[in-house]
Amino acid sequence: MSKKIMAINSGSSSLKFQLFSMPEEKLLVKGLFERIGLAKEMTFSYQTSDEKAEHTLPHSSHEKAVDYLLHFLLEKKFLSSLEELSGVGHRVAHGGEYFSQATPIHAEEIAKIEELSILAPLHNPVNLIGIRAFQTVLPNCLQVAVFDTAFHQTMAEKEYIYPLPMKYYRDYHIRKYGFHGTSHQYVAMQAAEKIGVPFEELKIISCHLGNGASICGIKDGKSVITSMGFTPLAGLMMGTRCGDIDPSILPYLQEKLHLTTKQINVIINEESGLLGVSELSNDSRDLVRQASEGVHQAKLALDIFTSRVRQTIAGYAGELGGFDVLIFTAGIGENSSIIRQKSCEGLECLSIELDQEKNQKNECFIQKNNGKPYVLVIPTNEELMIAREVSAHL
Amino acid sequence: MSKKIMAINSGSSSLKFQLFSMPEEKLLVKGLFERIGLAKEMTFSYQTSDEKAEHTLPHSSHEKAVDYLLHFLLEKKFLSSLEELSGVGHRVAHGGEYFSQATPIHAEEIAKIEELSILAPLHNPVNLIGIRAFQTVLPNCLQVAVFDTAFHQTMAEKEYIYPLPMKYYRDYHIRKYGFHGTSHQYVAMQAAEKIGVPFEELKIISCHLGNGASICGIKDGKSVITSMGFTPLAGLMMGTRCGDIDPSILPYLQEKLHLTTKQINVIINEESGLLGVSELSNDSRDLVRQASEGVHQAKLALDIFTSRVRQTIAGYAGELGGFDVLIFTAGIGENSSIIRQKSCEGLECLSIELDQEKNQKNECFIQKNNGKPYVLVIPTNEELMIAREVSAHL
Repeated sequence: MSKKIMAINSGSSSLKFQLFSMPEEKLLVKGLFERIGLAKEMTFSYQTSDEKAEHTLPHSSHEKAVDYLLHFLLEKKFLSSLEELSGVGHRVAHGGEYFSQATPIHAEEIAKIEELSILAPLHNPVNLIGIRAFQTVLPNCLQVAVFDTAFHQTMAEKEYIYPLPMKYYRDYHIRKYGFHGTSHQYVAMQAAEKIGVPFEELKIISCHLGNGASICGIKDGKSVITSMGFTPLAGLMMGTRCGDIDPSILPYLQEKLHLTTKQINVIINEESGLLGVSELSNDSRDLVRQASEGVHQAKLALDIFTSRVRQTIAGYAGELGGFDVLIFTAGIGENSSIIRQKSCEGLECLSIELDQEKNQKNECFIQKNNGKPYVLVIPTNEELMIAREVSAHL
Repeated sequence: MSKKIMAINSGSSSLKFQLFSMPEEKLLVKGLFERIGLAKEMTFSYQTSDEKAEHTLPHSSHEKAVDYLLHFLLEKKFLSSLEELSGVGHRVAHGGEYFSQATPIHAEEIAKIEELSILAPLHNPVNLIGIRAFQTVLPNCLQVAVFDTAFHQTMAEKEYIYPLPMKYYRDYHIRKYGFHGTSHQYVAMQAAEKIGVPFEELKIISCHLGNGASICGIKDGKSVITSMGFTPLAGLMMGTRCGDIDPSILPYLQEKLHLTTKQINVIINEESGLLGVSELSNDSRDLVRQASEGVHQAKLALDIFTSRVRQTIAGYAGELGGFDVLIFTAGIGENSSIIRQKSCEGLECLSIELDQEKNQKNECFIQKNNGKPYVLVIPTNEELMIAREVSAHL
């Protein structure tokens, strides 16, 4: 029998939800609360196959958002009663070394997610607000935490230990965790299905390129290597994050400009990346347009971005000992044929060549030939993956 | 007619020299002053084809070392008079954006090297001490500065601009400079000669693996990309340097442990790398031995080291659009067959396969087949490269 499952993704000032009917994976309604806590009012928008609407709500907190959401679902008859909800899945940013898979939430799990807030101070606390708000209203409903880091817990020690004094790993948990795990796993499984080969038998390089961006190398169905690190800053250049740079630059800047660590974090997280180099926008669509009009810094920003994607793809091919599948997903990966094209330039040495026409049309298979390595464009769907994880625990 | 040329390499507490007869590139004598400024006395050792000796000297400064060296050369009849010295080449750490090639030294060049001390506070000032000491004694002798950064000045903007706010490049010269340029250029030219193809026609990946380590991608005879950055900390894992890590780790550590930027610099430059992970040694020879005896952290340190070399080689292959030649040089690169072997594991996807026997014997060509890509072991010789640069200016 079909069951109704909710996927929740709470951010610092937002709460996204999707209600599915499982196992048929039918999306019943999805929506978004925004500007939570930023003003007295928050906005609420939702969308079904027939309907779309937006409201402004008089209160503004994650708890109020959950309250409103449940009333909305009843009022609009998406649920006949709250008990009809078979389970709720929550995206949780940081699972540390505790969680290597999606996990039903009880007091013990909540304590661990709370403990891990030290590693994800902007995310884990708001994830917990969502979890607690649902627990209050639906104390007997199955709730499952789906961690951004969990998929990468299979990485070998040599990939997650940093070349720093080991005491910082032992005493302060400083290691590579990796993020976007739910997305990488979802698109990799989708790709395997489309190719018609078991997921576990493919070597896959998955490029999640959005405002945040990371690449993951997958072998035997497991994450072997990924570009984000201790935090989601590391690796690729992103919209406003610098990714990997010479670490010495930070103490140098701090000394020269008398900056605090807080100011340094603002620079590398919010003022760098595409925005920092272009001095125009953190949005690759703006930069693609301006680069085509000859704006030098827009072109430079895209050149740096694609050069890093290219080097990471090639580097991971080496680390995996070759690969069968290259995937592009997320905002940029799914929609920007020019960024996919530029990222793959020079990768003929790894037998990667794009079919220009298929690439421009954002087709699913975009490699030139019909054989390996396959290059795929796969829309990511973290919410569906969350609903699947909840289903698996019913 | 043969001319005598001196190559000088001053470090913070050392001064190395080699006296050549050029153009036949014959080494007449080489030597080393050590513990300069660390104690009241310094040590001096030298070596010719017949002779080897070591002394302790009562004074301890770079100026006294140069004085002693010149007297020694006369007394031992390597020179009949100081005027017999046709030129002196000095290794200079940082040439910034001013110097893209070796340059005769006059007042203007000295002022620029001094100005660049801000970017290389431990090296440029001692390089200048050597230069000035020779100028005082031999005011009319040709002196040439050979910069560690110069070879990399051909990198494109997209390789040297960091994804940081552009003002830090414009106002504070924060960009990738790259180091080990003299070494990368020397071994790459040597490799081309051994292969019998003009240097300008080969795509080359040069791995300088010593206590400091960097990789350089070379195309059309020019450095296209390199792993060291704003400082020599960046890129690969090294003896005591961490190389690239998630930059966010530094402000995190600083806040957690209330560290100053000075303490952070000590951690990432002196306590990390092979030493930090193994908690045993910064010397790969010790770690290879201990790993073979089953010491876990020794093996882990080597696994991280070789994994980063492998990923960088593969990444640069992608950036160069394939490659013809892979070179290993410097202490580890020239002597450790096991590290070369482990670094190349998985790179069959780029047609790299080592001949185990040739590799174990440290032969010049160590690839399995006779064709491309060639894999070579080439002893580096920065001093000879310096002497050549001086010769070219005579």
